[in-house]
Amino acid sequence: MKTYKIALLPGDGIGRDVTEAAKSVLEKAAARNGFSLATTSYPWSCDYFLENGSMMPGNGIETLRSFDAILLGAVGWPRKVPDSVSLHGLLLPIRKAFVQYANIRPHRLLPGVQGPLRSENFDILCIRENTEGEYSGAGGRVHQGTDSEVAVETSIFTRKGVERILRFGFEQARARRGKLASVTKSNAQKYSMVFWDEITERLSAEYPDVEVTSYHIDAMAARMVMAPESLDVVVASNLFGDILTDLGAAIQGGLGFAASANINPDRSAPSMFEPVHGSAPDIAHLGVANPIAAIWSGAMMLAHLGETAAAGKVMTAIEATTARGIGSIPGRDKTDAITASVLSALD
Amino acid sequence: MKTYKIALLPGDGIGRDVTEAAKSVLEKAAARNGFSLATTSYPWSCDYFLENGSMMPGNGIETLRSFDAILLGAVGWPRKVPDSVSLHGLLLPIRKAFVQYANIRPHRLLPGVQGPLRSENFDILCIRENTEGEYSGAGGRVHQGTDSEVAVETSIFTRKGVERILRFGFEQARARRGKLASVTKSNAQKYSMVFWDEITERLSAEYPDVEVTSYHIDAMAARMVMAPESLDVVVASNLFGDILTDLGAAIQGGLGFAASANINPDRSAPSMFEPVHGSAPDIAHLGVANPIAAIWSGAMMLAHLGETAAAGKVMTAIEATTARGIGSIPGRDKTDAITASVLSALD
Ligand SMILES: CC(C)[C@H](C(=O)O)[C@@H](O)C(=O)O
Ligand SMILES: CC(C)[C@H](C(=O)O)[C@@H](O)C(=O)O
Repeated sequence: MKTYKIALLPGDGIGRDVTEAAKSVLEKAAARNGFSLATTSYPWSCDYFLENGSMMPGNGIETLRSFDAILLGAVGWPRKVPDSVSLHGLLLPIRKAFVQYANIRPHRLLPGVQGPLRSENFDILCIRENTEGEYSGAGGRVHQGTDSEVAVETSIFTRKGVERILRFGFEQARARRGKLASVTKSNAQKYSMVFWDEITERLSAEYPDVEVTSYHIDAMAARMVMAPESLDVVVASNLFGDILTDLGAAIQGGLGFAASANINPDRSAPSMFEPVHGSAPDIAHLGVANPIAAIWSGAMMLAHLGETAAAGKVMTAIEATTARGIGSIPGRDKTDAITASVLSALD
Repeated sequence: MKTYKIALLPGDGIGRDVTEAAKSVLEKAAARNGFSLATTSYPWSCDYFLENGSMMPGNGIETLRSFDAILLGAVGWPRKVPDSVSLHGLLLPIRKAFVQYANIRPHRLLPGVQGPLRSENFDILCIRENTEGEYSGAGGRVHQGTDSEVAVETSIFTRKGVERILRFGFEQARARRGKLASVTKSNAQKYSMVFWDEITERLSAEYPDVEVTSYHIDAMAARMVMAPESLDVVVASNLFGDILTDLGAAIQGGLGFAASANINPDRSAPSMFEPVHGSAPDIAHLGVANPIAAIWSGAMMLAHLGETAAAGKVMTAIEATTARGIGSIPGRDKTDAITASVLSALD
């Protein structure tokens, strides 16, 4: 029997609740589909930081490297550790070290879920650059604490980084409805974003079957709300993708439904799967977090591992659950009840 | 009779159509309220660039400085001049040179307008930093054209710049419902955005009557769609404000309804009033642009000049118009018909 080695990083807050739920669903899906998951859980988190002074051990990245995939809950608990420390100590280094340059986030309404928009028929796949750009972490502060203080933050875009994410976007569009929206802000940021636009334009010649359109981030944010059905694949920089995918989560009914995959397309290191939502300390461990985003992320993990039949069955089980009104209304059903429903739909 | 000197910058595309409309409404409002507007129109635009090699003459800023206010239509016509050139040659330098550091954009549904959200009861005032940050224009490209090319774009935030926009936000919140949302991305951008958060926190002690909450930009984008009624005043950096105000325009029914004011709060130079929408070359001069955003921006100009009674009457006339179903559905009514309705509602 094929066994996949999975690293679990429950992280903080509801990250733990939803990872637990996703694990049980994925294990059952595996058992029913002739493979198994060998999971190892690591307690790296803000609590770990308070005890050890770092978000993960020095060999954390090397430890994770031997796995087939990583399933992550959520990282961050601002009252314990500043987000700027916790995220730069765990989530962001993994994305970078494992060259998970494509962050994929699907946005559509699950059956039975009512979104905030009047419009209900959209199916958007956001592709976010995940390793550089506005998240480069380059910058500094001078004259600190004085009236003359200046803070600078530098976005760094490399041709390699931009080209590979755009190619990934073109490929995804080709495999879907053939439409790619590339998002920049080249009317205001004339170095980084003009660079991105130029590469988009040059690559478009190689993908004549894909219809590519460039949008400014402000116009795209408006479009996702006014005309989401006009969009197919959306590709954007690290920051713009971050913003658009929370917006995507919103129009699909909330963060409880937003799944994501941090993909290393070359498979030179493990990919990581995580719900878009954060750790939500206020509702941590109350048993009320919606596990659907985490389970959906788990289905994306199975698909990435090549277990597409099992992945499809998990998605069908999620859809059967929300269609029955379970987990479909934010905040109403308990984590356990939703998980139980998905589990039984797998039978 | 009091006379205000107004510089008109119709700019490009529908900017010309809507500025014309706004001018006629403002002139009538002035006449009915005992003051007059002495308007001078300047043809600075992409066409001007094609003839003269620059978006405005060398003494453009000095020419504008003598006016009491500026009414701008829209700038940009990408097929004639790249946006990165046209905007950096006209719109952005005015905002910076005249220290119009507060860009104010109100988001609420006009009567008779149906927005894309199920939710209809929101009244948000976005305050956008307008002179620095992500729009600093600092950056460059190395190894241009090669595989090793790198583009950098540096956001520059000064204590003075951040403090003054936050203070402005606190004051606006104080004058409204007492709630201020400050928007950053300090979990990923640990220099600029952590700096902003620190200043927000420090200033909050001076405004104990204002309830201030910090949000990440991604969470705020989601909130504007999921729970817009929970927001009062939102203050954000140049880029984040840009994105959030297009989103605000979307939830208020479209860019045809989104007004804005670029304010120099110290009145050391003229302020500038402009609709949020762009030049929309595809519908330029067809007589179909919705002038409501431009007229509303004009009302904000009258209020800034101290003519609050006239400003109120213009707003009432706009509301009477949309309430009658004129101009309330994007793309349906002609510019002239909407303008005529607002004009007659001023009687
Ligand atoms: C927690 C934060 C650093 C992270 C990000 O901005 O990438 C999150 O918002 C996400 O979208 O995965
Ligand atoms: C045209 C563009 C440079 C401008 C901006 O980003 O400031 C516009 O989008 C706006 O919001 O006024």
